Amino acid sequence: MLIRYGVSTGFASLGSVKNCMLASSAVFRRQQFLIRSLGGYSDHIEPRRMQDIRSMSGTTFEADAENVMREITPVLDPSKHKGQAGKIAVIGGCREYTGAPYFAAISALKIGADLSHVFCTKDAAPVIKSYSPELIVHPILEESYNISGLEDEERRRISSKILAEVDKWMERFDCLVVGPGLGRDPYLLECVSEIMKHARQSNVPIVIDGDGLFLVTNSIDLVSGYPLAVLTPNVNEYKRLVQKVLNCEVNDRDAPELLQSLAKQIGGVTILQKGKSDLISDGEIAKSVSIYSSPRRCGGQGDILSGSVAVFLSWARAKGKATTSQMNPTVLGCIAGSALLRKAASLAFKDKKRSTLTTDIIECLGRSLEDICPAC
Amino acid sequence: MLIRYGVSTGFASLGSVKNCMLASSAVFRRQQFLIRSLGGYSDHIEPRRMQDIRSMSGTTFEADAENVMREITPVLDPSKHKGQAGKIAVIGGCREYTGAPYFAAISALKIGADLSHVFCTKDAAPVIKSYSPELIVHPILEESYNISGLEDEERRRISSKILAEVDKWMERFDCLVVGPGLGRDPYLLECVSEIMKHARQSNVPIVIDGDGLFLVTNSIDLVSGYPLAVLTPNVNEYKRLVQKVLNCEVNDRDAPELLQSLAKQIGGVTILQKGKSDLISDGEIAKSVSIYSSPRRCGGQGDILSGSVAVFLSWARAKGKATTSQMNPTVLGCIAGSALLRKAASLAFKDKKRSTLTTDIIECLGRSLEDICPAC
Repeated sequence: MLIRYGVSTGFASLGSVKNCMLASSAVFRRQQFLIRSLGGYSDHIEPRRMQDIRSMSGTTFEADAENVMREITPVLDPSKHKGQAGKIAVIGGCREYTGAPYFAAISALKIGADLSHVFCTKDAAPVIKSYSPELIVHPILEESYNISGLEDEERRRISSKILAEVDKWMERFDCLVVGPGLGRDPYLLECVSEIMKHARQSNVPIVIDGDGLFLVTNSIDLVSGYPLAVLTPNVNEYKRLVQKVLNCEVNDRDAPELLQSLAKQIGGVTILQKGKSDLISDGEIAKSVSIYSSPRRCGGQGDILSGSVAVFLSWARAKGKATTSQMNPTVLGCIAGSALLRKAASLAFKDKKRSTLTTDIIECLGRSLEDICPAC
Repeated sequence: MLIRYGVSTGFASLGSVKNCMLASSAVFRRQQFLIRSLGGYSDHIEPRRMQDIRSMSGTTFEADAENVMREITPVLDPSKHKGQAGKIAVIGGCREYTGAPYFAAISALKIGADLSHVFCTKDAAPVIKSYSPELIVHPILEESYNISGLEDEERRRISSKILAEVDKWMERFDCLVVGPGLGRDPYLLECVSEIMKHARQSNVPIVIDGDGLFLVTNSIDLVSGYPLAVLTPNVNEYKRLVQKVLNCEVNDRDAPELLQSLAKQIGGVTILQKGKSDLISDGEIAKSVSIYSSPRRCGGQGDILSGSVAVFLSWARAKGKATTSQMNPTVLGCIAGSALLRKAASLAFKDKKRSTLTTDIIECLGRSLEDICPAC
């Protein structure tokens, strides 16, 4: 059975007799590819691995995204207190980029998180603060230009101070979003690597987007084997990740299988591959989200997605085994985040057409969630 | 008669014959607890104290909040001039927090105060100013990082200058709000302690929230015995206060009695304990406000409350003995502030549901007050 990348109806299985020979040959080639990507070729493939590969090829992928959203979104209860619906932190925002971390952090609040923090550079902070009084913005990160001329020891002292500052808060966060507007300054990325290691030690989930993916692609150990890591690459970020980790090129025809083997190869992280349909895998299962959509590709939508995934992931994790699907909470978070952004983008586009901006989409997050999952 | 913590109808008194034994035993246990918390156990309790304890257990608590609001809100009169409807100052806003003081200060204006000031750090000022041109923002406070390396004498000189700057204004203010976004920097808190002492000398009421409560919990003398101090703790801040002052743990069953004994123990300050129902006591009486509510717990609602209480308290104080209830103006201010926030939050939630943010609630303050207490 041959699985193809769906257009608007998800993934269609093509298994007609006419295509059988072709299909078999295609499946064989893909299996060969997967075998290589799952750890090298062997004449004697262990039975479980072979079974994995078959199950990859045989699954129907489209997620029941609206039901997932309904299942993981917590009931609003007046006896709860501040913080219990989620505390999110975005690590990002530098001299160049200030919009991206704002989009991610404000989206988290608009979906229903109680508190949203941003850890950014000193230059970026006043600007991000001025976008909204709702965010708690920590001006603590440093870029190389600001510490040039300092001795190594002094630079290390500053790094330690930054790390101590984030550590004060770490245990309180339900999820980190690393990357929106982070930039690629080496000193800053070094600090952020350490922050990620500390988050991992504290079992805090990490959603990684934008320049966070640049960092992780070059230092895959930061997330390798961490089941609470979620990567949200766009088409180019995904290509680089596949090249780096699987040492091969992306082939649209094998999209779900390739994604699944990539997630497996990074030790069971969850990957949300953004596209016309969004594809999600944790190495065990692969799901697609194709409902709703907008043809508008204004910058910043990925930031909304990362903030949304962070909130839904936290909610799914809080539900624990109470979800009927029994799926990995990171996968559930990705499914819900993807569907919500797609719906909000489609609502905004209906109204604003070509002039739709990211802020318009953010304004539609609440109504989109309410349509699918009424508050009461 | 056993008083239990009410859910939506305030406090119900349970006095059925069936529960009599149980009730008596519960009352006895609670009285024992109160005796301890009111200054240690004695076999011979003075008659007045015993009477106090009995009256605590026998009161019906739900305040007639809408009538309180109607009674203390001043009539709008074209012959009045700027400032007569209230001049409020918020002491808060530091490098990390800028949203909280803005929320408190703008709420005061939205309810009807004429002038709203913010005294904050130099870093925070431009950001807070950028949120709104309506506020008067004084960039005068300093944090340790900004004065590190200075001699003690120079630090003292800076403190004196800060204090002199606030003193210039002090007598003009009808109420201070200390704490929203204040942070916990030791040097800054030391300055704010001095500001509080000066406010007290000038008989200016002080509403204390957020990090102001952190300061006061560790230096209870700052407010002890000051009847114009209002503390507005949330669940965690309240726990710390009870542990520090009464050296015991919070027990939901005894909520009003515990609150009353806490307020008494701090020498008759007024405490507004925020929760599903808000509880208010000045050590003499205890009232609850349970009308309206929203299940959304986004950060910043406490800042609206502190700004609102400051305005209503000023109005209640201006009315003096003209109120029919003859209640302490600080208690009246808390009742009105609580009810107004709850109504505004419930209106905002009706419209925005899960995506309700603090700014949405602030936008509903005016309509909420107008519904209860029309301007003309």
